[in-house]
Amino acid sequence: MAKPSLPQGTRDFSAEVVLKRNYIFNTIRSVFELYGFQPLETPAMENIETLMGKYGEEGDKLIFKILNNGLDNPQKQAQIKLDFEKVLAGKNIKGITERALRYDLTIPFARYVAMNHGQLSFPFKRYQIQPVWRADRPQRGRYREFYQCDADVVGSNALINEVEFTNIYATVFKKLGIDVDLKINSRKILAALAEICGGSDKLTDITVAIDKLDKIGIEKVKEELTERGLTSAQVSIIEQYLLVKGSNEEMLEQITQLVGHTETGKKGIEEISFILQYQPDNHAVKADFTLARGLNYYTGIIFEIKANGVQMGSIGGGGRYDDLTGLFDVPNIPGVGISFGVDRIYDVMEELALFPANVQNSTKILFFNLGAAEGKTAFTLMQQLRHGGISCELFHEQTKFDKQFKYAEKKNIPYVVIIGTKEMEEKTCVLKNLQTGVQEQLQQTDLLTHIF
Amino acid sequence: MAKPSLPQGTRDFSAEVVLKRNYIFNTIRSVFELYGFQPLETPAMENIETLMGKYGEEGDKLIFKILNNGLDNPQKQAQIKLDFEKVLAGKNIKGITERALRYDLTIPFARYVAMNHGQLSFPFKRYQIQPVWRADRPQRGRYREFYQCDADVVGSNALINEVEFTNIYATVFKKLGIDVDLKINSRKILAALAEICGGSDKLTDITVAIDKLDKIGIEKVKEELTERGLTSAQVSIIEQYLLVKGSNEEMLEQITQLVGHTETGKKGIEEISFILQYQPDNHAVKADFTLARGLNYYTGIIFEIKANGVQMGSIGGGGRYDDLTGLFDVPNIPGVGISFGVDRIYDVMEELALFPANVQNSTKILFFNLGAAEGKTAFTLMQQLRHGGISCELFHEQTKFDKQFKYAEKKNIPYVVIIGTKEMEEKTCVLKNLQTGVQEQLQQTDLLTHIF
Repeated sequence: MAKPSLPQGTRDFSAEVVLKRNYIFNTIRSVFELYGFQPLETPAMENIETLMGKYGEEGDKLIFKILNNGLDNPQKQAQIKLDFEKVLAGKNIKGITERALRYDLTIPFARYVAMNHGQLSFPFKRYQIQPVWRADRPQRGRYREFYQCDADVVGSNALINEVEFTNIYATVFKKLGIDVDLKINSRKILAALAEICGGSDKLTDITVAIDKLDKIGIEKVKEELTERGLTSAQVSIIEQYLLVKGSNEEMLEQITQLVGHTETGKKGIEEISFILQYQPDNHAVKADFTLARGLNYYTGIIFEIKANGVQMGSIGGGGRYDDLTGLFDVPNIPGVGISFGVDRIYDVMEELALFPANVQNSTKILFFNLGAAEGKTAFTLMQQLRHGGISCELFHEQTKFDKQFKYAEKKNIPYVVIIGTKEMEEKTCVLKNLQTGVQEQLQQTDLLTHIF
Repeated sequence: MAKPSLPQGTRDFSAEVVLKRNYIFNTIRSVFELYGFQPLETPAMENIETLMGKYGEEGDKLIFKILNNGLDNPQKQAQIKLDFEKVLAGKNIKGITERALRYDLTIPFARYVAMNHGQLSFPFKRYQIQPVWRADRPQRGRYREFYQCDADVVGSNALINEVEFTNIYATVFKKLGIDVDLKINSRKILAALAEICGGSDKLTDITVAIDKLDKIGIEKVKEELTERGLTSAQVSIIEQYLLVKGSNEEMLEQITQLVGHTETGKKGIEEISFILQYQPDNHAVKADFTLARGLNYYTGIIFEIKANGVQMGSIGGGGRYDDLTGLFDVPNIPGVGISFGVDRIYDVMEELALFPANVQNSTKILFFNLGAAEGKTAFTLMQQLRHGGISCELFHEQTKFDKQFKYAEKKNIPYVVIIGTKEMEEKTCVLKNLQTGVQEQLQQTDLLTHIF
């Protein structure tokens, strides 16, 4: 048969990578729980109608659909053929596929809340760390299977939730050792800007242009705004807006002058001020009024995280939305949520060498195998050490030292214990630290109380 | 739109269930690592040719296949129609589906080892805890998405690996508090029995019949053996074999008399004896020569775990196999592995009330919200407690006591802290233990050093 391979855009994770990824997941999970968030897990498959139509036309195409089983049933062939014609025409697909792989964690979460809202106690604070699948064209850093890592509070309009999320971000990245900027803005301030520059129907034009500021610079943004039909007076107001600079306080003052006279602008400024007043001095929360975030459903505060000292897109983001479950006929459940970009966080930590050295050592001690009786003595000692929580292995067969050392090295095992005929007689053992090369003779009983 | 629902045979896991399941996963994971096993994760999707033909004809039908994307591409329609005819005939399906969801963890593991055997250091000890998907008809206790939890050592023939697995089983179930019988047998002993009862081609007949002993009793097993063409002399030998009873030592003696004169039988008995001599007295490893285990690829020691005190099928099993990766053209990689039936372990622990009470409390303290200033004081205290690792929440809005108490109760939060106007002035707080109902007044600073 052909050499086995992996589907395009998917990855095997070896021990080294799993342990590092779990270090990130466990750090995030522990902070979520410290803040009273509880885990939720939903199935990989959803009914196809739960997912279709939720991510735009392009999104629908990128959803992995699961072929119905039993298509070779002779009694169903006529119907299946008809159904398949529809698939080819890009239409109704129920006869061929009724299930699909989840595309993100938000829609399954909304589906869960819509199904269970009678039983849940609100505000409902859940986190979810699970893989999602997208039939995107694979490229560097873009995969067809990847983890998302989300936390949301639903059923509360209180801004204290936004404050909590800034603290969650700050705590997680402090624990991971990543120096970050946490940028916040309010969609209400952008809405106010649109309001005073040609009406709210200009909001999309303005945000799309502003979103490019980092990449194309202010002059090109102004050109684009003009092309999109804004007058020079309007462009000039937007320019003033984009030139707002300084400390959080200074910027808020300037923004107040620009949009503070509108109802929406005032609300947005209050939101930002509320969050900033809760920040300790050492937090890196920065108001950034040019922050837009593409997704349309955000209606209040939006967040974005950038790592300092490394070239990388945002490693986290989120915001407030008005209506999580309206799509599933359960209205009036507002919420706010954030997510962590785990693949990018992993890359940042690799580049800046931030993973602790001990993430990778799983086995602490390798006992050499020097024969049946020696192996048995080693085995007994090993079981006692394991009982104390120290992970050990006995080399699986009696063989030359060389091979046993090599196994320890390849597996990053820091200590070996050697018990030969002489050590058996003396009830001793040789303990060698493979990192320092230091070797010592110990009583076997002392090995059990040794600090590793 | 229609009320949202879950695909048949799949489940949402709420916080309570996730936390309990994670307790089981984490216990197993920590023991695997204590024994030097390292994690592996493979993608949910495999190329369809990696999976098809590996699980028998029935298995092929139960594999969830993923519809190729781009089927509505007008330029491909003619070809796709031809391909689909083949699907309907149950034949080649490449044009319609090229990927499928993994059906178990063994074949993806074999695929991984076959792809990477040049880089791996053997013996390679991996564990893997991931979901699998099967299009089985859903029924009580049988799901279309469920977790498997496997550990294998490949590239070693040493029986010490089997010993390690008996210890892993014993350690995990001791930690979980489940009283178990760990049964072992060797396929070699069954092979020897077949050898002396009509030749090795009778092995399947004999094991199929023996496998039913528990359910149908010895007389029916004898009938079945006769129906399957065994002579009365042969049936009588098998009856003797099935009547073997007593301690491990007594049984081994009787089995030696029955099959110890054959080469295969002798080897099997040596295997069992080797494993038993490593067992401490308190381990529940029991030789059970009627143990067969359905899967055909086992060639040596086989394991099975039964929980005592509860009606439930086996909650774990495994065994030795000769050739993991031969299917992928990489021969001569023998191994031995075990798995844990996590869904059943969960049910046993629920039935016997073995989950520790603290598995479920994620939030320790709820701070009541009694106004802006009070909330801010509460917030500051809360942040300090979180810094010490204590999970807390501040109720999201100022509202009546009732509602805040109810939130704490529903979320199983054991403590509430109340700071009102009076407490603000006195720099105190009221700490109430919701389990005992006891309420005390504390200095706010003392709250930070209180033991929760």
